[in-house]
Amino acid sequence: MSTIDVDFYFDFGSPNAWIAHALMPAAAQRSGLRFHYRPMLLGGVFQLIGNRPPMQQFADIPSKLSWFRREMERFVKRHGVPFEFNPHFPVNTLKLMRGAVLFQDSDQFFPYLDTCFHNMWVQPKNLGDEEILGAVLASAGFDTDAFFEGITRPDVKQALIEATDTAVARGVFGAPTFVVGEEVYFGKEQLFDLEADLSRDAPAPA
Amino acid sequence: MSTIDVDFYFDFGSPNAWIAHALMPAAAQRSGLRFHYRPMLLGGVFQLIGNRPPMQQFADIPSKLSWFRREMERFVKRHGVPFEFNPHFPVNTLKLMRGAVLFQDSDQFFPYLDTCFHNMWVQPKNLGDEEILGAVLASAGFDTDAFFEGITRPDVKQALIEATDTAVARGVFGAPTFVVGEEVYFGKEQLFDLEADLSRDAPAPA
Repeated sequence: MSTIDVDFYFDFGSPNAWIAHALMPAAAQRSGLRFHYRPMLLGGVFQLIGNRPPMQQFADIPSKLSWFRREMERFVKRHGVPFEFNPHFPVNTLKLMRGAVLFQDSDQFFPYLDTCFHNMWVQPKNLGDEEILGAVLASAGFDTDAFFEGITRPDVKQALIEATDTAVARGVFGAPTFVVGEEVYFGKEQLFDLEADLSRDAPAPA
Repeated sequence: MSTIDVDFYFDFGSPNAWIAHALMPAAAQRSGLRFHYRPMLLGGVFQLIGNRPPMQQFADIPSKLSWFRREMERFVKRHGVPFEFNPHFPVNTLKLMRGAVLFQDSDQFFPYLDTCFHNMWVQPKNLGDEEILGAVLASAGFDTDAFFEGITRPDVKQALIEATDTAVARGVFGAPTFVVGEEVYFGKEQLFDLEADLSRDAPAPA
């Protein structure tokens, strides 16, 4: 089975990004996908292109809003993903996403991802609150002094801005988004579509 | 295998309603679903609840609009559904949907569905044009005089209004929508989710 490189654009603030993240290891095993995690600031994406979060977009259409919530409940039940909607939604994720950029090339990246996603969407807390974020990171074994110093570094701030610009340039308009070459797959459920398309199109093993 | 009753809310103007319609016979065979076709006027639904068609909603967000189109292309390729986007989109479907109500309890209903969907989304034409609609129906063997007389009947007009109101009352905000009891499944791709959920929840055969 050949390996297929997939860019995964995410923000911890997106419940569907968590759900996708939870399902990606099994998809990688099944289909030979190699996921490259690409942090971005979803609020920045929305601002750049004039899009809005679904919860705001559907606020005036109660039937659509309740479908949106119910669809998530059914999806996580169907696929066995632990999930609890964050009562503090929408959480400001600027610091969290700067942290993702800070850790991106280190061996702390995946522990950091798991810690943030877990405390956003499994045992949800207001991670936009610096005190709560600090406590969560400390109890997961992170050096919080280094963290809070790191995320104020100009190069870290700049890297998140550039990552967000790149996401938009590649056609990202929401989260989660999978990008393979020129092909954009938007939404947690398209993880499975991506798998189906790529395994079908993949050249037969030699 | 027990039978599960599913209401399918549709309007010929929705490309995704056509795609769902094309996949439903196989789903019915696989999963023991029994689909009840419920015509509605999608434009009426949008007006009642203040929703807008996706193509309009995304008009200012080119990346989302092009994803929307591309996603449809990939979906029909993945599932082998013949499809060509109608260049006259959005087509006014008022007469077409009145026709669906007119034929609903007759043996002409499914031939009429297939004729309309085919000439909207497989060999697309402007079926909003009465002359073109008449020619299409005549060549499919329908009595066009009876058709055009039938769709002006007050009871037919009223039935479509009531069907549209009922759709909204049941939580429909777009097309296609599947409704099973209180559960609303929106979008062609949720046909598969519906199947998965209902076969899982279904009591074991005696």
